[in-house]
Amino acid sequence: MASAQLRAVTCTAPVNIAVIKYWGKRDEELILPINSSLSVTLHQDQLKTTTTAAISKAFTEDRIWLNGREEDVTQPRLQACLREIRRLAKKQKSAGGEDPLTPSYKVHVASVNNFPTAAGLASSAAGYACLAYALARVYGVDDDLSEVARRGSGSACRSLYGGFVEWQMGQQADGKDSVARQVAPESHWPELRVLILVVSAEKKQTGSTVGMQTSVDTSALLRFRAEKVVPARMAEMVRCVKERDFPAFGQLTMKDSNQFHATCLDTFPPISYLNDTSRRVMQLVHRFNSHHGQTKVAYSFDAGPNAVIFTLDHTVPEFLAAVKHSFPPEANGDPFLKGLPVTPAPLSDALKAALAMEPSPGAIKYVIATQAGPGPQTLDNPQEHLLGPDGLPK
Amino acid sequence: MASAQLRAVTCTAPVNIAVIKYWGKRDEELILPINSSLSVTLHQDQLKTTTTAAISKAFTEDRIWLNGREEDVTQPRLQACLREIRRLAKKQKSAGGEDPLTPSYKVHVASVNNFPTAAGLASSAAGYACLAYALARVYGVDDDLSEVARRGSGSACRSLYGGFVEWQMGQQADGKDSVARQVAPESHWPELRVLILVVSAEKKQTGSTVGMQTSVDTSALLRFRAEKVVPARMAEMVRCVKERDFPAFGQLTMKDSNQFHATCLDTFPPISYLNDTSRRVMQLVHRFNSHHGQTKVAYSFDAGPNAVIFTLDHTVPEFLAAVKHSFPPEANGDPFLKGLPVTPAPLSDALKAALAMEPSPGAIKYVIATQAGPGPQTLDNPQEHLLGPDGLPK
Repeated sequence: MASAQLRAVTCTAPVNIAVIKYWGKRDEELILPINSSLSVTLHQDQLKTTTTAAISKAFTEDRIWLNGREEDVTQPRLQACLREIRRLAKKQKSAGGEDPLTPSYKVHVASVNNFPTAAGLASSAAGYACLAYALARVYGVDDDLSEVARRGSGSACRSLYGGFVEWQMGQQADGKDSVARQVAPESHWPELRVLILVVSAEKKQTGSTVGMQTSVDTSALLRFRAEKVVPARMAEMVRCVKERDFPAFGQLTMKDSNQFHATCLDTFPPISYLNDTSRRVMQLVHRFNSHHGQTKVAYSFDAGPNAVIFTLDHTVPEFLAAVKHSFPPEANGDPFLKGLPVTPAPLSDALKAALAMEPSPGAIKYVIATQAGPGPQTLDNPQEHLLGPDGLPK
Repeated sequence: MASAQLRAVTCTAPVNIAVIKYWGKRDEELILPINSSLSVTLHQDQLKTTTTAAISKAFTEDRIWLNGREEDVTQPRLQACLREIRRLAKKQKSAGGEDPLTPSYKVHVASVNNFPTAAGLASSAAGYACLAYALARVYGVDDDLSEVARRGSGSACRSLYGGFVEWQMGQQADGKDSVARQVAPESHWPELRVLILVVSAEKKQTGSTVGMQTSVDTSALLRFRAEKVVPARMAEMVRCVKERDFPAFGQLTMKDSNQFHATCLDTFPPISYLNDTSRRVMQLVHRFNSHHGQTKVAYSFDAGPNAVIFTLDHTVPEFLAAVKHSFPPEANGDPFLKGLPVTPAPLSDALKAALAMEPSPGAIKYVIATQAGPGPQTLDNPQEHLLGPDGLPK
């Protein structure tokens, strides 16, 4: 009986890494940013959130389980997503949808990440994109989902698309024009590779919600950046992506990461997401590029010490050798390299000398090799549902 | 014979710590800054440069010894100082000075610091202020010495005065109005204390001359700071000093240090002077202040990881106990506290809990306790000359 009444869908959604950073809201309630941003969607083979949403007439309340643990469904951002998806479902129903009852059905949601939460890997972006996508599928909503995802976590709207995605800040007070759109699909730049250097899996110190609010309130440099620096950078980054101009893409990516962290330091009290290992990675990248006389590798850091490295496929083996040389892996039995396979390469003595780095053993825990990937997916096999026929986690 | 022909003077000059930071030149040759700055002159009982300048008809060339080692006298900044002092001496002579020959005499200079050079303790400021002052005395020059000192090292002009000193950026192309002036003498705020937390005595990675040049060339945030942020901060800092408003003085000091380091991070390639220990000190200061519900302690960092702490005399014992708790001294026989004596104080359990710091043993090597002090001094006792009657280091 319960089974017959239950409609369940399971979806996956990707992590994205901004190369023009989002930091600061002009509207806290609607989650409208003070500047546009642009990101690369990472491949779900390595990093993804999986979410099952099930609705049933029999459910008496909305419930949600994250990584196997039930969470408070009344938290405001979750409520904003649910309210917004039901608004869209009702709008569609009144326009002649076939399924008039479902918008009022309660929903059960279960979600898991295949990577540690809150380690600076933008898990909330993948999580809320996946939630928006799964809710849309289960309630039969066909609209643009930017607003649903954005109300959960601003950068989540960028995880609704694959490849290269911009989140246009928009101008309207109601946020209707603050939407994500794809700049280019992942197939546009197949040589691009992404290495995530996991520096620490500890929970970060200042959450990004509180952090960016303090920055907006206290940093004059952030306001200047948003108004005067980012618009030109957005246009230039779109050009870099369209023309696959890696040196310019890499330089601008590094500059924008640095400027974001500069505005964090200009915040009062100051916010520091980078640590000494992050800074050593930055130094390694600059020395690697100097040695080659061109920008072959670029870093970007979000609200945590992990480094996200962008490079092209043919540079990966040599750069990984440089990483292992500078951050000798601890022999604890875990593989140092996860994700895409990399053909090992030796490190030339000339490069070793150019790096001139004191080795920091164990400072990088492991590396995830990945690439740009597609947007959210729907899984067809009911075996993959995270909720059973009773609407509870399996 | 040599002794009779030799005129020698020995002077001392202080270190200064900027609370509104100087970073960036609008004229590299004349050393004219892109913004005004304001500093506290530290007491020479703890930190000073001592310089002997001797002139003699018998000398055949200018020579200089720093910390006992002869250095290249042809380096441009040293030459600029020598040229400028001789220009002033000649000007004075033609105005009727009694000593017509001396401007053309060659000079021997010997200089020593009582603290490690190039450890981020602004040794060049004390060094060039002392050089300018000693050269002026030995050549009989009475002019304002801002330009002589500034041509050696911009911030050196601030070490020409005691207490609280502003370096007005000036407007003229020839730099004649880019001068230091005293805002208040050291006696104005006798309760103010300065603690230098020496994090590392290693030579810094990016010299400030090269660093600030790269910042001017690449950081849009630095240009904005210089034009739009600093003017109001200068006025506010002068007010804080005049009114001895420690909470406002401390907050602005921290904000300006943070903004300076933010512009370093916005430089490309980025410059990082702060390390993890610096950041832990910042965190300690903010938690200490939060616990007390007011700004009782402030930090400032120059081009290195050492923290300079400003506080009032009655707060020193408790803050020093907090430092020792968070950075347990290594028992290597050296005293942890140097300089002014501090009465030990216990750390309350409430404060210990509020700090919530993982101890970092040995991360701070030692602390120098000092206070604001006077400007350059002339030593009267010939026994203190660093050069002998033959004009060579003793």
